[in-house]
Amino acid sequence: MTTPSAGWTTDRTAGSAPDPGPGAGSPALLTDRYELTMLQAALRDGTAHRRCVFEVFTRRLPPGRRYGVVAGTGRVLEEIERFRFGTPELDWLSDERVVDDATLEYLAGYRFTGSVVGYAEGETFFPSSPVLVVSGTFAEAVLLETLTLSVLNYDSAVASAASRMTSAAVDRPCLEMGSRRAHEHAGVAAARAAVVAGFAGTSNLEAGRRYGLTTIGTAAHAFTLLHDDEEAAFAAQVAALGTGTTLLVDTYDVHRGVERALAVAGTGLGAVRLDSGDLGVLAHEVRAQLDAAGATGTRITVTSDLDEHAIAALAVAPVDSYGVGTSVVTGSGAPTCGMVYKLVAREGADGRLAPVAKASAAKTSVGGRKGAARRVVDGRAVEEVLVGGADERVAAWVADPDPGALGPDRGAGELRPLHVPLVTDGVVDARWTGAGGVVAAAERHHASRAELPRGARRLSADEACVPTTALTLPA
Amino acid sequence: MTTPSAGWTTDRTAGSAPDPGPGAGSPALLTDRYELTMLQAALRDGTAHRRCVFEVFTRRLPPGRRYGVVAGTGRVLEEIERFRFGTPELDWLSDERVVDDATLEYLAGYRFTGSVVGYAEGETFFPSSPVLVVSGTFAEAVLLETLTLSVLNYDSAVASAASRMTSAAVDRPCLEMGSRRAHEHAGVAAARAAVVAGFAGTSNLEAGRRYGLTTIGTAAHAFTLLHDDEEAAFAAQVAALGTGTTLLVDTYDVHRGVERALAVAGTGLGAVRLDSGDLGVLAHEVRAQLDAAGATGTRITVTSDLDEHAIAALAVAPVDSYGVGTSVVTGSGAPTCGMVYKLVAREGADGRLAPVAKASAAKTSVGGRKGAARRVVDGRAVEEVLVGGADERVAAWVADPDPGALGPDRGAGELRPLHVPLVTDGVVDARWTGAGGVVAAAERHHASRAELPRGARRLSADEACVPTTALTLPA
Repeated sequence: MTTPSAGWTTDRTAGSAPDPGPGAGSPALLTDRYELTMLQAALRDGTAHRRCVFEVFTRRLPPGRRYGVVAGTGRVLEEIERFRFGTPELDWLSDERVVDDATLEYLAGYRFTGSVVGYAEGETFFPSSPVLVVSGTFAEAVLLETLTLSVLNYDSAVASAASRMTSAAVDRPCLEMGSRRAHEHAGVAAARAAVVAGFAGTSNLEAGRRYGLTTIGTAAHAFTLLHDDEEAAFAAQVAALGTGTTLLVDTYDVHRGVERALAVAGTGLGAVRLDSGDLGVLAHEVRAQLDAAGATGTRITVTSDLDEHAIAALAVAPVDSYGVGTSVVTGSGAPTCGMVYKLVAREGADGRLAPVAKASAAKTSVGGRKGAARRVVDGRAVEEVLVGGADERVAAWVADPDPGALGPDRGAGELRPLHVPLVTDGVVDARWTGAGGVVAAAERHHASRAELPRGARRLSADEACVPTTALTLPA
Repeated sequence: MTTPSAGWTTDRTAGSAPDPGPGAGSPALLTDRYELTMLQAALRDGTAHRRCVFEVFTRRLPPGRRYGVVAGTGRVLEEIERFRFGTPELDWLSDERVVDDATLEYLAGYRFTGSVVGYAEGETFFPSSPVLVVSGTFAEAVLLETLTLSVLNYDSAVASAASRMTSAAVDRPCLEMGSRRAHEHAGVAAARAAVVAGFAGTSNLEAGRRYGLTTIGTAAHAFTLLHDDEEAAFAAQVAALGTGTTLLVDTYDVHRGVERALAVAGTGLGAVRLDSGDLGVLAHEVRAQLDAAGATGTRITVTSDLDEHAIAALAVAPVDSYGVGTSVVTGSGAPTCGMVYKLVAREGADGRLAPVAKASAAKTSVGGRKGAARRVVDGRAVEEVLVGGADERVAAWVADPDPGALGPDRGAGELRPLHVPLVTDGVVDARWTGAGGVVAAAERHHASRAELPRGARRLSADEACVPTTALTLPA
């Protein structure tokens, strides 16, 4: 009753490298104009070549959320590899005089040669968690700001919502089918992010092709209406797709629909789908109807504006899988994360890396590069620990994090380091990209969520379930 | 004080045909799996070739919204032209056994040969408005469902929110700068949709390149922090971009920032940007400071989580333009429209087109193809009129809509037809695509919104500002 494919036509696609399509074009112009004009000004006065550290983090979780889920990291890395200014981009920038010739020349030779560390994709995060840390010259790092944030903010919003849904569904599979409620390319990313957060598959074919995701589907009301009557539609579907298919039974009357479905397909019918009405009541009635007819193996899948709360409310109904659309691709009320890409340290005139932070009202940032670890006691996360200070001290702490540094009252448990290398001197670590990256991210999410404190998976509004402590290590 | 480019580095790009990038790949797999498996079943029993009419409409507006704005129509048409199954797509579908060989053969030859009419892009809409009507065989029309809805649902959500913002801003320009808060490709579509709804420009370079939009930008806090001090940053920016540039003055202290900006750029400084704090209070203070220093022509632009309500609240502040990010690209609380793509008529076994509609609880649809017109009295819209009935009667009514048909009490005014031809026998009308399509859509939106009843532009929650009447013409 709870196999990942319960009630859906499924197809586990082979893992393969992500293919953005033949010559899918450079992502370099998916960028705010000011990144390029700042570059022009910085090239002119030489500061463009100062070494810099940018951190990506969010100041707060969406209201009521207890944790967030990092997603999109693999996509960011794939985009960094493709981030080049080719002739079409350079010609347009030149024709439009967006930047001067010296800047065009720099862009023509651009490739990212810096380094990136970050939370592994799928990891949970909290306010201030430095989920990505980009090191390089100002020029090379600033150009990645817009694209990096676009990917992480959208994908993490989806994964953060999706995790609540898979949590509410316990061991019943959730299937992503919201492509039509999102921008056509966002739908592909949403499918991927949902799978990172535990979804079993997606209706989106391109997501199947690009990331090796399981693709699923049933049929629409239009298919029934196309035919002269419901029996003809069911017969056509069973003839083409076999009795293991899922028949949509609510075009006219659900119980007559179930009768007709069994008459056509027999008691070996794979599943029926309910897409309207009081799903909990209907599921009980249809389960009884199916069982009475001997179709005890026929599963019930439900769809229709489900979100994490609706899924939780159906926990006691005899439902075998959930198809989720709008709410997952729009982040269930939080359609973007508030992640920002902030300069936290830069090389000064003296050649040394120095912490920097703005002082704007209500938007203060903490300067300096930070290490991050999660303190875990008896297998449960109790604290997110961020440490700043002299770079060498931070590096030493990250290499061998010692809970004792937190003081005698917080020395229990162990510190799990959170930053993993993603890009080293311009070379992307292929473990995190493509279909393999999605599998790794889903595993990381499963483990990270299991480690959260009891109660973290409650859907009711509350604070972040793990507090964050920021320490400055003594010099 | 209110030129479209007030306070921003601007660049009106030349209009040009949309370029999705070299070999950007077919959009054919941006599609739900079930569209293809339904096709397989319908090809097998012959119903795939029945003539069909699908309508796109929404059952309701987002809570409190008084009207919606159709956007994305031009993008739908561009995608229809590119909707082909090439070798990469067919190979993947074959390898994964998504559909059988007969279906693959059909897909290999696929191109849309049907017709599409719809509301002109930029038009306002209400619940049940048939914003797009797709006619063709089941096979050719069903394949377009997912992609059509993805585009219209996202773009219309953005335009519907953006229209409230430009309405609240009255004659002060709104600039779109939310790319980093949306999926990287959604950001491009959001920029386009915002401009349809009256935004003056966007920070997104790809949107500038693809749709000829004005691109704008200032500088980020990182640019100031990169430098040894604020003066050095301002000097670098002015040296590179001229005194007409916009300086971001809130990295440290706003008033010191303004002092330094004027010291560096002189009173000919183009603008200052405020991105934090109480923007209304700060704008008054900064205006006084600028004026006292003689910089009476220096403009003030504000950013920082603005939405339509924040913009309205700033109406009395001396602000020259608004930079809007998160709220516009996420639809300001309504990140997707609930548009559906429903079969309303299909050829029966007798070869005649017959209306169809499902009877599911709470999701009933009205069958039959419908004409649409807006009744306008003294230049104000008073009623959305949808007419169904025999096709010939509907066609005759659409060709010459007569208010008298609505009954004696509603015979006043005139009926403005809402459907325009978009695709005729597979040929896309180029008026609606590319950069020219965006210009036309922005003009349509401006006129359509001006025609709404007084009070329609109130931001407070209320019902749709124009009621919808559905009539069935007598046979």
